[in-house]
Amino acid sequence: MNPIRVWAPTAKTVAARIGESIIPLDEAPGGWWRLLQPVPPGTDYAFVIDGQSPVPDPRSPQLPYGIHGPSRTVDHMAFAWQDAKWQAPPLSSGIVYELHTGTFSEKGTFDGVIDHLDALCNLGITHIELMPVNSFSGARGWGYDGVGLWAPQESYGGPDGMKRLVDACHGRGLAVILDVVYNHLGPEGNYLAHFGPYFADHYTSPWGKAVNLDGPYSYEVRRFFIDNALMWLRDYHVDGLRIDAVHAFVDISAIHFLEEMACAVRRLEAETGRHLVLIAESDLNDPRIVKPVESGGYGLDAQWSDDFHHALHAVLTGEKDGYYSDFGKLGDLARALESGFAYDGRYSGFRKRIHGRPVCGLSGNRFLGYIQNHDQIGNRALGERIGHLVGPDRLKVGAAIVFFAPFVPMLFQGEEWGASTPFMYFTGHQDPDLGEAVRNGRCREFESFGWRPEDVPDPQAVETFEKSILQWNETEQEPHRSILKWYRQLITLRKQVPDLKDGRMDRIRIRWDDSARWLLIERGRHLLACNLSKARQLVPLSAEKTGFLVLCSADGIECRADGLLLPPDSAAITHSVF
Amino acid sequence: MNPIRVWAPTAKTVAARIGESIIPLDEAPGGWWRLLQPVPPGTDYAFVIDGQSPVPDPRSPQLPYGIHGPSRTVDHMAFAWQDAKWQAPPLSSGIVYELHTGTFSEKGTFDGVIDHLDALCNLGITHIELMPVNSFSGARGWGYDGVGLWAPQESYGGPDGMKRLVDACHGRGLAVILDVVYNHLGPEGNYLAHFGPYFADHYTSPWGKAVNLDGPYSYEVRRFFIDNALMWLRDYHVDGLRIDAVHAFVDISAIHFLEEMACAVRRLEAETGRHLVLIAESDLNDPRIVKPVESGGYGLDAQWSDDFHHALHAVLTGEKDGYYSDFGKLGDLARALESGFAYDGRYSGFRKRIHGRPVCGLSGNRFLGYIQNHDQIGNRALGERIGHLVGPDRLKVGAAIVFFAPFVPMLFQGEEWGASTPFMYFTGHQDPDLGEAVRNGRCREFESFGWRPEDVPDPQAVETFEKSILQWNETEQEPHRSILKWYRQLITLRKQVPDLKDGRMDRIRIRWDDSARWLLIERGRHLLACNLSKARQLVPLSAEKTGFLVLCSADGIECRADGLLLPPDSAAITHSVF
Repeated sequence: MNPIRVWAPTAKTVAARIGESIIPLDEAPGGWWRLLQPVPPGTDYAFVIDGQSPVPDPRSPQLPYGIHGPSRTVDHMAFAWQDAKWQAPPLSSGIVYELHTGTFSEKGTFDGVIDHLDALCNLGITHIELMPVNSFSGARGWGYDGVGLWAPQESYGGPDGMKRLVDACHGRGLAVILDVVYNHLGPEGNYLAHFGPYFADHYTSPWGKAVNLDGPYSYEVRRFFIDNALMWLRDYHVDGLRIDAVHAFVDISAIHFLEEMACAVRRLEAETGRHLVLIAESDLNDPRIVKPVESGGYGLDAQWSDDFHHALHAVLTGEKDGYYSDFGKLGDLARALESGFAYDGRYSGFRKRIHGRPVCGLSGNRFLGYIQNHDQIGNRALGERIGHLVGPDRLKVGAAIVFFAPFVPMLFQGEEWGASTPFMYFTGHQDPDLGEAVRNGRCREFESFGWRPEDVPDPQAVETFEKSILQWNETEQEPHRSILKWYRQLITLRKQVPDLKDGRMDRIRIRWDDSARWLLIERGRHLLACNLSKARQLVPLSAEKTGFLVLCSADGIECRADGLLLPPDSAAITHSVF
Repeated sequence: MNPIRVWAPTAKTVAARIGESIIPLDEAPGGWWRLLQPVPPGTDYAFVIDGQSPVPDPRSPQLPYGIHGPSRTVDHMAFAWQDAKWQAPPLSSGIVYELHTGTFSEKGTFDGVIDHLDALCNLGITHIELMPVNSFSGARGWGYDGVGLWAPQESYGGPDGMKRLVDACHGRGLAVILDVVYNHLGPEGNYLAHFGPYFADHYTSPWGKAVNLDGPYSYEVRRFFIDNALMWLRDYHVDGLRIDAVHAFVDISAIHFLEEMACAVRRLEAETGRHLVLIAESDLNDPRIVKPVESGGYGLDAQWSDDFHHALHAVLTGEKDGYYSDFGKLGDLARALESGFAYDGRYSGFRKRIHGRPVCGLSGNRFLGYIQNHDQIGNRALGERIGHLVGPDRLKVGAAIVFFAPFVPMLFQGEEWGASTPFMYFTGHQDPDLGEAVRNGRCREFESFGWRPEDVPDPQAVETFEKSILQWNETEQEPHRSILKWYRQLITLRKQVPDLKDGRMDRIRIRWDDSARWLLIERGRHLLACNLSKARQLVPLSAEKTGFLVLCSADGIECRADGLLLPPDSAAITHSVF
């Protein structure tokens, strides 16, 4: 039997509509309301606040009719889990794979993901990271406009589908990280304000009012999100969470929301004996986020390093638009590799302010490093992957840098074979006005970069979504097959060579030449030499440093007494015996 | 000769009006503009931005014609300082005295303050804390509506007057702390927005737009305030700053504004070989503010403890309005004494949220403790001091608790003799509409507490200001003379007894009885017993703890084998030999 309860501190009356009945809820302490009689699992219900129209439960365990329809109770104990002996591997030794349930497989469901898990295991992936699975408007979307934060999207397979996927992952030795969005709710189906002061009047976020993390009633608002985090970890056996855009949290209270969440997750870890990880997406370049609580940090395990991405992307593509204007020199890439952040307290021309702070003593394993992610691809007008921009040869060089970095490597779905499919921005908003606003907003956004509106794909169009679906059969064709082989080789090397997983950023030695465009990264006895120019050239090295070739991204690489001779857009990894 | 320069990053042209001339400024890097030729000290000038009306320099060293008039250059090297050998005493051993230049003396000027410095020295004060002296609208005001942050208020005596005061203090062994307001500017004469993005669109403060501490251009905005802090310390020889309402700073960047300021002050300290202190007014109950930078803090020296004040005030008065609703039990006072904060992570009914965090290992010397300050008096409709509310006997008990606390004691001007004068909220806004708005706002504020508008003193009326001026001649009359004697005794004891200055809050032993209303505080071998009831009663103590009487706030206190017998509203300090 499931209890029905809800927090609505300013409501005068709260009732539950179950079937045709409207049953008043009793007031409980702290602004809560409850139905004295629990209901059976599978009961559909909605809440009636102060006599208004029924709305779904903010904590709906399932939304079988979509985000506007009634909630359904779920018995989380009923699922027949097979993963009793499961323990997740440490993130520090991991290789993460970000995927979007709707486009990863032809089916576009959790079960569709299961179909391809063996391929990920064969590749050497240790952790999959699911883009948000919370319920959002319509049948397709990235998930960041979620409103039913407790209910897995019904079109993906709902609660049972999600559990089948996690169980299948664990059965294959794969850990599951889930992307959760606590900095805003989507514009459609956001009924939270009916229930209480979930949003703050005193701060704004890029999406409007910020979430109320430090104002009156913030205790319950924080609890709503932290309980949600614990719910995924507990009821869905998820091994960790990726917390979206933590720079959009504004919380100046003495215990930051993230610290409170991390402490709650540590307690669950101790309770259950499972390894649980928290990863932040942070644009703050603030080491406090991943520093231990004992030394004044928030105690998360890791964060994405967008600086490393931007530095690498700008070097590979030569792009200078928007935030890439702060990057472009090989020295920026070197600084990110040696310091985690390229901007660690220096002036950012893009931001027009001093940005970041040095990480002092943190391990590189506290950062995820990647050549692309859903945002960096999908926030382009046409959703091009890095390989579409620079071609397969240079993609291979970029991938080598990712796997040679002291960070935990992360791939975006299809990256391993240089998928031909884009990953575009797509939505399926049901509200036509909102759909129109999103369409127009997208056009306006790209107008400032010189795009004509008719050239910007319509996010609401079903083709925009369909074009983004991976085509797994292309892995047998060139150049995809050879890219896949290169990724396999890099992953195998990463797994075999302890030097590459060493998080000590002060041990890395980097040399480069910005005009000749070569880069040398030395990690212990392994060395990565990259030629990022369009000419065959020698990367100068003393004979004892050169060693012997371990991996070559292209034919025609030569070890010479005075260095490594590399064809255009190629990389070589060597091993020295000295 | 003085340089003329100003930051105006979005201006198209900037000129200086000097006399009848309009002289264009040259652009310098980083959005700065400068006059190539420096001007003599004493030159009057104003800035013309994009051809608009002339406005004063945001960094005006002097505003001889008030906040709307031209700026004047000042040669800070010209003053004949006599304090070359001065070193300030440590704050941890100090006794702080908050004063308001306009009402501390009949003259209402810096020179008027000098007239009474000997009285403060005789009392045992070590640090005076000046309420803001920055230039504000009109000739009278508290100073928190300052707009000329670099220019001492002309009606107080301007730059030279301020220097004479600091020099006179140093000559008598008194350190000077200055109250600075960096969280907002006053509503009248705030020309900052003409010059640049000093204010943020994304956050609000109680005064409107928050100061831009983490948005684009925030680097220069932070520098404006930090340079101001350094200016007072360097050019006016001030020994420390009290930073107003730091909870109104919203800054989520990786290096918090307060940390950056503290680091800049530490550098000046190292440069000059002087002891400099930073004290925050903070409502956050966040130990990070006073924790060292090395352990993740912002590195300030101390902060005001409003929790201790509120707990003490509520116990002494029985008031339950507003924020006092969170206090009233002797246990709250005990918790503040043992922990610095009474709310260190527990639910506050007034705030409707969890508040604060434990201070874990911080010294009590990191907190200033007081029975009243300008705010707690002046934010009452009638500006009553604590003694006006509870009478001289209970005032003496409260004072004993302040000097027995592990915090640095702070007095508000006239407290030492239980001054009969109130300290009311007074303003002298020149803009009649603003004056009217302030008057009406004040009435509305107190209406919710049941006040009739005609009973709320008019802040704009000159009588409201005049009534607040200290009457030094009353110190010869009772009960003022006996209160002054009690304060002298307490201060002498505090200075003589190392136990009382011990900041280790975990060494304090406190017992109390909420129904009988007695309180016992034990610090080493010294013990303070307080009877806060209206009946004569025994405070139970074993014979060896009782010791002998050191100080009694009233006649008729008896040491007995079973405890201390205390008349109503009295306190006794004993010293045990065991």
